[in-house]
This record gives sequence, structure tokens and C-alpha cells, in this order.
Amino acid sequence: MRVLGVDPGLTRCGLGVVDAMPGRRVRLVEVGVARSDADADPATRLVAIEAEVEQWLDRHRPDAVAVERVFAQHNVRTVMGTAQVSGVVMVAAARRDIPVALHTPSEVKAAVTGSGRAGKAQVAAMVTRILELDTRPTPADAADALALAICHLWRPGGAGVGARRTGPTAAQRAWATAEAAARRSGR
Amino acid sequence: MRVLGVDPGLTRCGLGVVDAMPGRRVRLVEVGVARSDADADPATRLVAIEAEVEQWLDRHRPDAVAVERVFAQHNVRTVMGTAQVSGVVMVAAARRDIPVALHTPSEVKAAVTGSGRAGKAQVAAMVTRILELDTRPTPADAADALALAICHLWRPGGAGVGARRTGPTAAQRAWATAEAAARRSGR
Repeated sequence: MRVLGVDPGLTRCGLGVVDAMPGRRVRLVEVGVARSDADADPATRLVAIEAEVEQWLDRHRPDAVAVERVFAQHNVRTVMGTAQVSGVVMVAAARRDIPVALHTPSEVKAAVTGSGRAGKAQVAAMVTRILELDTRPTPADAADALALAICHLWRPGGAGVGARRTGPTAAQRAWATAEAAARRSGR
Repeated sequence: MRVLGVDPGLTRCGLGVVDAMPGRRVRLVEVGVARSDADADPATRLVAIEAEVEQWLDRHRPDAVAVERVFAQHNVRTVMGTAQVSGVVMVAAARRDIPVALHTPSEVKAAVTGSGRAGKAQVAAMVTRILELDTRPTPADAADALALAICHLWRPGGAGVGARRTGPTAAQRAWATAEAAARRSGR
């Protein structure tokens, strides 16, 4: 199973493709960032991001797309652009009949670090270790996109082969706990 | 000049096409609502709205698309879906090289009623009067979409012919005031 993780953003949209391998291992396929010109008008910027995402979808043909669920808790301007990008990405995938999953930041952090409150550096460090990379993926948006893809592959009942044979790992239990907490808080 | 006004929403997305006529008059071309199945997954819902919007764009070939600017002030879940729809609409227009303009709710209300704080019923009543309709457009999303299109045509420096010859009307001055206030408050 191949998953494209997307950390949506108008200035930088993180993109990471990960394959599930036997025994709950995961493999990096490609990681990068789609960017748009901050001086361009919003619609033009969305078109630029969409074009890049569509290239990734057509090049890698993922079995699923995992997008970070956006909340309105931070900067209002930024979050609106982020939500618009997430909508554009979701449509681009759905037009190709690729299932789209949304994961909260807490779920993603818990999946790769065991803690839903982990910092960005910790997430990047764990992504580097899990994918057996020589260097940390940069910028943070790229690492987050990979973490999203891993989170989706390792979700309870997901494609992580070992997970189904051996029951949930500590990280998966943390993931389930974070997900339940997010549901309770209405997110 | 022909404008498609869009009041973005995942459950109901208001759509209204208005033509500018000589002497600052405006004419209704078509009004309606794109809907999506609340039981479907979010990506599928976005695809349904996008398909409907693309049909409107291709059928009416507007010179501009006016979309309501979304704020994160209300229900978080709803506003995220709304922002995603606005992103999808903006991209659909920009892909066709149709300019996209964003107008705040205050600007739109001021343009058609003279007050940026007017209620929904007042907006619908004025849209009905301005477009010389026999009955009020329903639901409110449809009336709001028409108000958006009128707002765009009547904006200072816009295509409203009389506006350029005679200077701003009271409604246009109210519009400019509301716009300036929105800019000051960082919206």
C-alpha cells in the first residue's frame, strides 16, 4: 500500500509518499514541498499548488491520500488558506477515486512518537529513524507530510501488516487514545 | 459584464449569475444552490460541489467570480468545510482564467442595503428589489450569492456604468467604509 501524506499550506504544502513493506516497515518513495508565490493572488496560488499535487498523484498513484485535518485555532488568515488548500487536495484525490483520510496533528504525533504532544523536532527525528533516512527531511512541512503518511499506514486496522498479526503497538495505542480525545473535544 | 456570485458551503453552496446593464442596472441570469450529500465523505462532497460549479462556469462563462471571504469566527467544523469549498471554487475559476474576487459579508451587506450590519432578510429583500424579481430568492444562500455578484459589479471602480459617471452612491460609500473597517481589523 502506498500513501501520499499532505501537510496543507499555501506558502509551503508538504508532500510525502511512503510505501508499506512487510513486517510493519515503511519505505520513503519521495518527499518534497509544493510552493506558491506569496505575491500572487489567492486563486492563482491555489492553482499552482493543485498542479503540483496532481503531478504527484499521477506520478506515484497512491492507494490513499492522508491530509492533515485543519483547525481554526491559530492565525485566521493562515488557517483559511490552509483549509482552502486541503479542499483542493481532497478534490484532486477524489476525482481520481483515491480515498482521502484526515488525521489530526495529535494523531500524527502519537503515531510516530508515541505522544500526541510531541514537538516538530521530535516528529522529524522519528520520521528520519522510522524511514531509515540519512538526514532529516526539511522543511518541517515535508517531515510532517511523511509523518501523516506513516500515521495512515499504521492506524489501527490499517495496512501495517505486523500490526494486524501482533495487536496494537505502544504507538498505536497512543494514536487511538489521541483520536478518542480529539473526538471527545469535538475536533 | 457578467459575474457569478458564490456563497460557499458544503451542505448548500449558493450560486447567482448577474449581468451589468447600462445605467447601473443589473439583471438576474440564473440563481440556484449546489448541494452535497451530508452522509458522504468530505472529499466526495467537495467533488459534487465542484462539478456543479464547473457546470455553471461553463454554461454562463462569467467575466468574474465573486466569492464570500470566509472567517474562522463561527462553528469550527462548518467554517472549515466552507473554506474548503471556497478553495475549490477559486481554483475552478482560476483554471479557466476567470478572475476571482473575495468580498467580506460586511461589504456585501453594505453594497445592497447601505449597512454592513444588515440581516439576512434585509439582504434578500434588497436583492429582490434591485433585480426586480417577483419573489425572493430562496434559500438564503441563493440570495447571498446574488448579493455577492451585485456587490462585485457595484464595487468602487467596478463595472457599474453609472457609478463611474456619477461618483459613488450612498451604498458604495457604505461599501468602501465597511471594506476599510474590515482591512483595519485584519480581516
